[in-house]
Amino acid sequence: MQRTLIGDLGQQIGQEVTIKGWVSVRRDQGKMVFFDFRDRTGTVQGVALPASPAIEVAKETRNEYVVAVTGKVNERPEKNKNAKVQNGDIELEITGIDILSKAEALPFDMSADGYNLELPTELDHRALTLRHPRVQAIFKVQATIIDSFREFMKQEGFFEFQAPAIVPATAEGGAEVFEVKYFDKKAFLSQSPQLYKQIVMTAFERVFSVNKVFRAEPSVTTRHLTEVVSLDAEMAFIDSWRDVRDMSEACVRYILEQVAEKNAKELELLGATMPSMIAETPTLSLTEALEKLGAPADKDLNPEQERRLCEMIKEETGSDFVYVYGYPTKQKPFYVYPNPENPEFNEGMDLLCRGVEWLSGGRRINDYTQLMEHVEQWGMDPKKIEMFLEAFRYGAPPEGGFAFGAERMTMQILGLKNIREATMFVRDMNRIDQSLSEEI
Amino acid sequence: MQRTLIGDLGQQIGQEVTIKGWVSVRRDQGKMVFFDFRDRTGTVQGVALPASPAIEVAKETRNEYVVAVTGKVNERPEKNKNAKVQNGDIELEITGIDILSKAEALPFDMSADGYNLELPTELDHRALTLRHPRVQAIFKVQATIIDSFREFMKQEGFFEFQAPAIVPATAEGGAEVFEVKYFDKKAFLSQSPQLYKQIVMTAFERVFSVNKVFRAEPSVTTRHLTEVVSLDAEMAFIDSWRDVRDMSEACVRYILEQVAEKNAKELELLGATMPSMIAETPTLSLTEALEKLGAPADKDLNPEQERRLCEMIKEETGSDFVYVYGYPTKQKPFYVYPNPENPEFNEGMDLLCRGVEWLSGGRRINDYTQLMEHVEQWGMDPKKIEMFLEAFRYGAPPEGGFAFGAERMTMQILGLKNIREATMFVRDMNRIDQSLSEEI
Repeated sequence: MQRTLIGDLGQQIGQEVTIKGWVSVRRDQGKMVFFDFRDRTGTVQGVALPASPAIEVAKETRNEYVVAVTGKVNERPEKNKNAKVQNGDIELEITGIDILSKAEALPFDMSADGYNLELPTELDHRALTLRHPRVQAIFKVQATIIDSFREFMKQEGFFEFQAPAIVPATAEGGAEVFEVKYFDKKAFLSQSPQLYKQIVMTAFERVFSVNKVFRAEPSVTTRHLTEVVSLDAEMAFIDSWRDVRDMSEACVRYILEQVAEKNAKELELLGATMPSMIAETPTLSLTEALEKLGAPADKDLNPEQERRLCEMIKEETGSDFVYVYGYPTKQKPFYVYPNPENPEFNEGMDLLCRGVEWLSGGRRINDYTQLMEHVEQWGMDPKKIEMFLEAFRYGAPPEGGFAFGAERMTMQILGLKNIREATMFVRDMNRIDQSLSEEI
Repeated sequence: MQRTLIGDLGQQIGQEVTIKGWVSVRRDQGKMVFFDFRDRTGTVQGVALPASPAIEVAKETRNEYVVAVTGKVNERPEKNKNAKVQNGDIELEITGIDILSKAEALPFDMSADGYNLELPTELDHRALTLRHPRVQAIFKVQATIIDSFREFMKQEGFFEFQAPAIVPATAEGGAEVFEVKYFDKKAFLSQSPQLYKQIVMTAFERVFSVNKVFRAEPSVTTRHLTEVVSLDAEMAFIDSWRDVRDMSEACVRYILEQVAEKNAKELELLGATMPSMIAETPTLSLTEALEKLGAPADKDLNPEQERRLCEMIKEETGSDFVYVYGYPTKQKPFYVYPNPENPEFNEGMDLLCRGVEWLSGGRRINDYTQLMEHVEQWGMDPKKIEMFLEAFRYGAPPEGGFAFGAERMTMQILGLKNIREATMFVRDMNRIDQSLSEEI
């Protein structure tokens, strides 16, 4: 019989159907066996009654067995209905169970309520824990974030390109960059598609990419990984950095709206509260921000100050977000555009939310002469960025862009404590899928 | 004045507008200067007449200068209209030119007709050649291929995940795999998301990914790169490998339709002829294919045989495509599902088009016991694929999937001679962006 998806069973009351999926829960009550079955569209309760031709197979079945189950969709008696769960008003009266694949006894409790693993165990057993609704909810939200980013950029006329992972020796030096044995030469893993997106911008004006970036972070924190998904955009013909600010704000707003709309169930399951983005996100220069905090000028914000600033803004305006712009020019990369009226400060910006940075960006230098001056002042080797420099040597419009990490945004939206929870296959100093403590 | 996009000028006849873009062509005719201007939406001709307040600036302007141009949109006299080019019925009468960015003299002819570079030169100057309409057309088609793949998979209920680039030591051995210095350990670059997509399939049933894969191919051919974009899909609860065949066929059909619809202009510019996919793509077992070719059985198809088979099928049916399935089990990876009725042959498949492979896939082993037998027979170390094996130890449905390379499909659809033409930032044995012949 044709498979019916569990999510569609509500329209099949009184019908005989076949579902296919996994046994999430099995309760053997002697004469009868109760089940929770699961497929990609949800869960449903089933029961094998004493007279069911499937009662013997039902007794053999175990958690995580893959089964094809035939039965009749019955409406539950009023007193047994549960409006809080999917298919809480129906039950499948099982007439046949076909075991498609057996499972060994589970190494830990995978039930919705009993699941309570330490993070290292969850990651060690990612192949199994990925089946848990709570874990799935995180990655469903992440998929929405990434897809909504692409959707928004396409709506705004941005062109998608594929930024490379393998890069030649970087001009900015070798700190925290992974080295690749490239035949008889050395190559490296990209830390950012920054220079590539600027190159492609000079040809396509508005560009974006969803690509991996790599950082050889030699420390283990709750916020750092060695491999993450970077969402990058770059736009030409801006009038000022404020055009970049506005585009990034509209992008984040769109993503938040899409997550709220498409992942309401997941947000509820995870107990997550979406951050509030008001009509116009408060925007302060670094100098204004430090002043507001009563801190000495000329320094960057430290993490504690970022937290306090977000609290103050939230209290004053209701906004969970705040833009800070205008950082000390010399402290930022060579390509960031200095404010023409006050070149000690640049037109770079960060978007903070709930105390941490969500996104950064700003205006870039597009004038070739000014770019070459910075290359010299920053002590860089122009040969190592020749392709980038070529793009600007032959006419490049005023431009800027922004970037953020998919895992970090997932973590922040969902209020997770560790970025590893928002990463399907974790790579850090001590782990590639599994712990590296045993020599591989 | 607000910027008008060049693609919208046709609706502005008689109006004064400001466009922003690049100077593609400049013809100084003494008293007058003619231009072709270019932005992301197309090109338009402009003229600075002798009495124009912009005539002096027009004479200073050079190719690839970035400009903001103000002028009046005039309908051309009937005899000067050219229906074959965009905006061929209008002309911009220039009243002002604001130079936003200058360009040095170009190292080669970038005009639409004069552009004629050897491939190595095109790649050495990717930052500049990316501006050429012919080069842009290729990557616009590629963006459609990638985006249509995602669109199709989402329509079919597939979940997008991010496959990792950095992987631990692979169980299949170290041939053609790049090594990464991973702190004090070794890691590698993924050759395929195969095992990861199978893992995620056991949790989400239907999954896809768009991710980089890497191959340390120690030879320089027209078809191989070290870094490519792999489009991967995997689906659970199949009845047979034919479900995978059907899904992959529908996917390719959708991509072809989208390219034909969205990139008609680019296909015309590149002189490309889309391959013909008939209602049901001819599908032969390897044995049948060899028999048809009059070749001895039990061998795989060689490139010459693939070409001849495609020609024969095209002649007989009109189809540019043909599926071949049922390869010798021992010659393929351990996870491919052997035909239960004839275990010497498996349920793997390839889709050929115009003489070359476009896509491969097939059914995989989902039974844990059978999988472990193969692991042993293939001489693999189960510890090195422990996460993969865990997914199948705890109940995995009958399943299969397919994969193809974005660059290769771009190359084949467009009839390009070298895969490097279909790659924005080429990585091969001799090149990472630029030639590696100079030590970096």
